[in-house]
Amino acid sequence: MPSGVTLLQVEAVADLATRLGGVVDPPIAGLRIERICAPADASGGPELLVLNSSRYLAATLATGSPVLCSEKLAAKVPAGRRWIHAQVMWAVAKLLNVEAERRGRHPSARVHPGAQLAEDVEVHAGAVIAEGVRIGPHSLVSENAVLYPGVELGARVVVGPLAVVGRPGFGWARGPDGSLMRIPHRGGVVVGDDVEIGPLCTVDAGTLGPTRIGAGTKLDAHVHVGHNVVIGAGTMVAAQAGFAGSAVVGERTLVGGQAGIADHVQIGAGARIAAQSGVIGDIPPGETVAGFPAVARDRFFRAMAHLLKLPDVERA
Amino acid sequence: MPSGVTLLQVEAVADLATRLGGVVDPPIAGLRIERICAPADASGGPELLVLNSSRYLAATLATGSPVLCSEKLAAKVPAGRRWIHAQVMWAVAKLLNVEAERRGRHPSARVHPGAQLAEDVEVHAGAVIAEGVRIGPHSLVSENAVLYPGVELGARVVVGPLAVVGRPGFGWARGPDGSLMRIPHRGGVVVGDDVEIGPLCTVDAGTLGPTRIGAGTKLDAHVHVGHNVVIGAGTMVAAQAGFAGSAVVGERTLVGGQAGIADHVQIGAGARIAAQSGVIGDIPPGETVAGFPAVARDRFFRAMAHLLKLPDVERA
Amino acid sequence: MPSGVTLLQVEAVADLATRLGGVVDPPIAGLRIERICAPADASGGPELLVLNSSRYLAATLATGSPVLCSEKLAAKVPAGRRWIHAQVMWAVAKLLNVEAERRGRHPSARVHPGAQLAEDVEVHAGAVIAEGVRIGPHSLVSENAVLYPGVELGARVVVGPLAVVGRPGFGWARGPDGSLMRIPHRGGVVVGDDVEIGPLCTVDAGTLGPTRIGAGTKLDAHVHVGHNVVIGAGTMVAAQAGFAGSAVVGERTLVGGQAGIADHVQIGAGARIAAQSGVIGDIPPGETVAGFPAVARDRFFRAMAHLLKLPDVERA
Repeated sequence: MPSGVTLLQVEAVADLATRLGGVVDPPIAGLRIERICAPADASGGPELLVLNSSRYLAATLATGSPVLCSEKLAAKVPAGRRWIHAQVMWAVAKLLNVEAERRGRHPSARVHPGAQLAEDVEVHAGAVIAEGVRIGPHSLVSENAVLYPGVELGARVVVGPLAVVGRPGFGWARGPDGSLMRIPHRGGVVVGDDVEIGPLCTVDAGTLGPTRIGAGTKLDAHVHVGHNVVIGAGTMVAAQAGFAGSAVVGERTLVGGQAGIADHVQIGAGARIAAQSGVIGDIPPGETVAGFPAVARDRFFRAMAHLLKLPDVERA
Repeated sequence: MPSGVTLLQVEAVADLATRLGGVVDPPIAGLRIERICAPADASGGPELLVLNSSRYLAATLATGSPVLCSEKLAAKVPAGRRWIHAQVMWAVAKLLNVEAERRGRHPSARVHPGAQLAEDVEVHAGAVIAEGVRIGPHSLVSENAVLYPGVELGARVVVGPLAVVGRPGFGWARGPDGSLMRIPHRGGVVVGDDVEIGPLCTVDAGTLGPTRIGAGTKLDAHVHVGHNVVIGAGTMVAAQAGFAGSAVVGERTLVGGQAGIADHVQIGAGARIAAQSGVIGDIPPGETVAGFPAVARDRFFRAMAHLLKLPDVERA
Repeated sequence: MPSGVTLLQVEAVADLATRLGGVVDPPIAGLRIERICAPADASGGPELLVLNSSRYLAATLATGSPVLCSEKLAAKVPAGRRWIHAQVMWAVAKLLNVEAERRGRHPSARVHPGAQLAEDVEVHAGAVIAEGVRIGPHSLVSENAVLYPGVELGARVVVGPLAVVGRPGFGWARGPDGSLMRIPHRGGVVVGDDVEIGPLCTVDAGTLGPTRIGAGTKLDAHVHVGHNVVIGAGTMVAAQAGFAGSAVVGERTLVGGQAGIADHVQIGAGARIAAQSGVIGDIPPGETVAGFPAVARDRFFRAMAHLLKLPDVERA
């Protein structure tokens, strides 16, 4: 496995910048680029280094290769070898992107005849799609994923491998005789356009109304979304985070890895929930929180720093 | 996807109460109910609102629809429109429940001929059941789940989609030459009656004796149960919680989401483990704990409140 | 399900010790052993008890059966019935190990003709292996696991059931117009010899260079390894732990259950990361850390002990 990626088309840096934007130092404008790679993987060949963190500055400076970097990092790279771009990783994405080959439905996928899929929906090997599921155009259901009845996906939705969408939520009711009974969940799941549900995620069906994931929201791997949760549009959720039943999350929220949101909690739009936070109360819009119980991030870290510096804590 | 659920049978509120219990305010006794829904989804039609939290009181009061509510919340709802019930969510469950259609074994399921399944066990698409597995009556193995040799399931057990039961536990032994060797786990898994193992759960096989899950215990999604763990009957485990090897959990314990229980720890019957707790020592019966390391819940929250209110923590 | 395991071959304790090492008290040297079990499962028959924790000492002393134990525990067991061994669990592993039957490739597995598998690689039911994947000899891909293009596995690698290796990492770039675009991940995953990837794990593909897992490293269930992470050889990772993008983990590191490692963090060789730790800064080689933010383990526990003992925390 070579480190770095060989481009499908060899182009001069100036031509790349014409297509993708940014400013190129004149000495490298005519250089033809065959591959792109991380600074640590520089080989001295016709390659473009991607500098996206000052951590990799030393490795970058040890080479003479052209460098794609942000304006902020550009000041630390010698002039004459920089392609300065306001959105470095977007440019990398564009450089790497290739037209995905169309793959259609795998013969081992089990799509119920009563499911309604737009004509071009791809369904990969071993996926199971139940009766009544509806899926919009340009969507993809990956390997061994399972969609239960009552699931509605918008356009350009990606369901990752082994994800489970629409299984009945984990709700139980105790009867007059003390016995435990599963509450049926018939509200389904409604997923907006351009959503990605990562591998091994679970999105549970709502009880009466649906569980909702807003347009453009992206869930990383192993995320759990409980019944009747509402996640606003444009939200990003990192791996292994979990949302308990009926939590409401505003638009454009960022949720860190392994964070947990308690049931019925409301999180305002644009909030940022640090990794491993335990959110058990409502969070105002735009707030950044951390810790358990989650409070303003700076306050949490000041508290822990204070505690760790006490004399009888610091002594060996 | 309409919010709310249309009932299979239209009935008057008084008739519902005759069947399911509770007390109905006379003015609504004769009203015929076609659907049930959350207060926020009220349409003004022939519907029953389910009020299960004071959070939804305002939405309820903004409508004139009949309301199914607990005695505690009943005091806040105007008389004349209440169906007061001691177990609201149980009544909802009964209203929503429909006779599940019998589905049998999917042709793509792979059941080893040496597995012993009661006649009516359902096995869904893509599930894999190994030689020697035994499953009691009225049980269900969901899509793409995998049961390994040495697994014994009782009656009315539900194994969720993509769950893995009985894979060898994660135990390794270092030999005289320093090399690492997997410890075989041949003790299997014994699961009692009426257990639910959620989607994407793992329950590992024991080394010599079995890993055990007691009757009536319910595991939500993404739960990990290590080798030789013993979980008592009637325990509820929320999503993404994990139990390390040989932990012992008493009956009727509640374990919150993302909680972790260390290896060999013993948890007494009826204990309550808050979400995200890290339990590294034994817990007495009936105790409620939180935090890492987990201590009495009130003490943990008092400690965090104290810390967060110190002057040099509070200042911006 | 009997507790304990019947051995395939009946042997005298002295013969077992000749093969596996350790010192046997003379009175039990000639005893022929038919089964091995935990002390609590002793039946009084021709069995060997495995004593691997002082927790089980009372149960051991309540019987007269021979006991396999470490030197440390041997002092607490009456002389005359001990087989003392320096690596007790390794000896148990050897006793239990049986030649695994060769099972080959299941007909329901979907292996792309463009994948390159060594001749003896086993592929179980429902597994999906994409074009270009390369797998070394004596490896196993378990039920319903999914391997994406760009994955290279060494020799004797085990991929657990429902694991996902090589799906594109969770990286997104915002374009000049504010729209969000997935960064392609074409760096693949390189997995060394003797690695185990547990059930329901995800190992994401790198962006330009590969995500790497060093030889002999073992991942328990539900572990998430983000794009471009590098995990050194001989590392052990417990269940539900997660590594964010570009984290670098040294050799022979121990990572506890539910621990989280932030992106770009570097962890030195031989470090020990306690369960539920949240590591957001670099960790020196050999350090033992705990808590969030993770600091030296002793310091974290002293801090929590101090906090929990303050007068206004302790009062009811």
